[in-house]
Amino acid sequence: MSNNNSVTINDVQSAANRLFGIAHRTPVLTSRLINERTNSQVFFKCENFQCTGSFKFRGAYNALSQLSEAQRQKGVITFSSGNHAQAIAFAGNLLKIPTTIVMPDDAPTVKRTATLGYGGEVIFYNRQTTNREELTRSLAQERGLMVIPPYDHPHIIAGQGTVAKELVEEVGHLDLLLVCCGGGGLISGCAIATKAALPNCKVIGVEPERGDDATRSFYSKTLQTVTNPDTIADGARTPSLGQLTFPLVLNYVDDMVTVSEEALIKTMFFLWERLKIVVEPTGVLAATALLEGVVKSPGMKIGVIISGGNVDLAQIGKLL
Amino acid sequence: MSNNNSVTINDVQSAANRLFGIAHRTPVLTSRLINERTNSQVFFKCENFQCTGSFKFRGAYNALSQLSEAQRQKGVITFSSGNHAQAIAFAGNLLKIPTTIVMPDDAPTVKRTATLGYGGEVIFYNRQTTNREELTRSLAQERGLMVIPPYDHPHIIAGQGTVAKELVEEVGHLDLLLVCCGGGGLISGCAIATKAALPNCKVIGVEPERGDDATRSFYSKTLQTVTNPDTIADGARTPSLGQLTFPLVLNYVDDMVTVSEEALIKTMFFLWERLKIVVEPTGVLAATALLEGVVKSPGMKIGVIISGGNVDLAQIGKLL
Repeated sequence: MSNNNSVTINDVQSAANRLFGIAHRTPVLTSRLINERTNSQVFFKCENFQCTGSFKFRGAYNALSQLSEAQRQKGVITFSSGNHAQAIAFAGNLLKIPTTIVMPDDAPTVKRTATLGYGGEVIFYNRQTTNREELTRSLAQERGLMVIPPYDHPHIIAGQGTVAKELVEEVGHLDLLLVCCGGGGLISGCAIATKAALPNCKVIGVEPERGDDATRSFYSKTLQTVTNPDTIADGARTPSLGQLTFPLVLNYVDDMVTVSEEALIKTMFFLWERLKIVVEPTGVLAATALLEGVVKSPGMKIGVIISGGNVDLAQIGKLL
Repeated sequence: MSNNNSVTINDVQSAANRLFGIAHRTPVLTSRLINERTNSQVFFKCENFQCTGSFKFRGAYNALSQLSEAQRQKGVITFSSGNHAQAIAFAGNLLKIPTTIVMPDDAPTVKRTATLGYGGEVIFYNRQTTNREELTRSLAQERGLMVIPPYDHPHIIAGQGTVAKELVEEVGHLDLLLVCCGGGGLISGCAIATKAALPNCKVIGVEPERGDDATRSFYSKTLQTVTNPDTIADGARTPSLGQLTFPLVLNYVDDMVTVSEEALIKTMFFLWERLKIVVEPTGVLAATALLEGVVKSPGMKIGVIISGGNVDLAQIGKLL
């Protein structure tokens, strides 16, 4: 693992080469209704259709495929609220690398089941009483496993950057790219890839109001944290940006905004009904900022990243 | 409107030319899980992502775009349980042709709202007491409108055939194509397009058990009917195949099978959860036959048409 934060477009390109033929080149969807409503041209990059149901597979596979033979035999460990867990378990499955996942005991059932289904070993912890990073580090030391964190790792960041790289390759010029932000791996990688191809394209990150640590960090230029925020966007419950992602966000991202829980739920079902895609709450953060008018962009050509679609239907059905 | 049933691959090609740049070239999705479970290679052609949320837009636009200037000014009328209605309303909107839609008063709210939103005039009727075709004909005569039926029309059939044409162009060889069957417009067009490119590809139609008229017609070689079948697959509640589609089904389709209501609902939510697509009950008929083992095809390369995604979330949510 590199000790510097110099993830570049070359790293994103190398990740794209590793992922070629392995990860899905996910579809880009458009909607006349949404174009009319926003008075702009909107392109949804649908990572809910990625292997394991979210963009996380890109970073996970990019990281695991670069391990040495000795490291592959010992295996890896990670901590995750869900999507990174599935991604690591499945990438490990493909690459024949044993995986151990430290997961909160309140993670959605669909994510737990899928992680186990991909052959990962899952160790649960209580979100209120246990520091997941400490638990992971002690297990790693005990068992000789390499830690693959969910976002603060240059190979993870470079892998996630391939989302924006593909989007720009497919739709060409963009005036604006909207990306959800949890720990900052996706937005860092995507901002690097976007600015390399389209230096004038603005990149804006979107968080839930209740987990607005990255927005506060961005404006104060000092790392801010949040503790177990009560947001339906479980992928954005991360405590803070990372040591690598925070400077990358400051360097490459143009603005950060937040959206309410109500707006998230409304947008999620709107996309289910009109775009016909199953998206999870975290996955609609970027779309919510656009559709609820938090970001206004008449006349612009806009990319919106839909980050994932792993919902527990029985649970989410109660909101209908 | 032609009086013969000679829809050919040339008609499908002409329809494809008319639809180019207007209809979406919908994505083809794959799933490792489904490939493993069925021991085959499965390609889902996702017409739930088509304009208006179903394949019906293809036939509607193909038919309306061939009207004379005089006919365009007078306008058109049709009868539909929903998806054809939306398709005609939207195609009329694009082509500046006034549209009147005769729709059952129990059609899903989402379909009624969308049809009105596209600018169609909607006339409701009671499914138990009124013959929709008679009502449509009398209104057409009274107002000088041209009737564009939902399936029994050569331009409709040719338009729907572009679904399979695109699928075969994208994935190449197929051993088997599974298509849902209501009035037979989609399956007729798709069988014509498929057999032209891949003469050895088997085409199998799928109906709900409760609305199995086309299966009985296929096996008895005599047109069979069904009256208001109580199936959740509302697009397959059609009374029978048509005068054009029945002989086309006999000529081009290799087999017909049926699936239960329980299997439909199970498959629908399975596709929501694993493929991350919102599909309506009629839209999963073909997938259900495969995933529930009604059609067995180990080692084959299989195309499955997902016909639409117009669900009333509030209503369908109750099934979760």
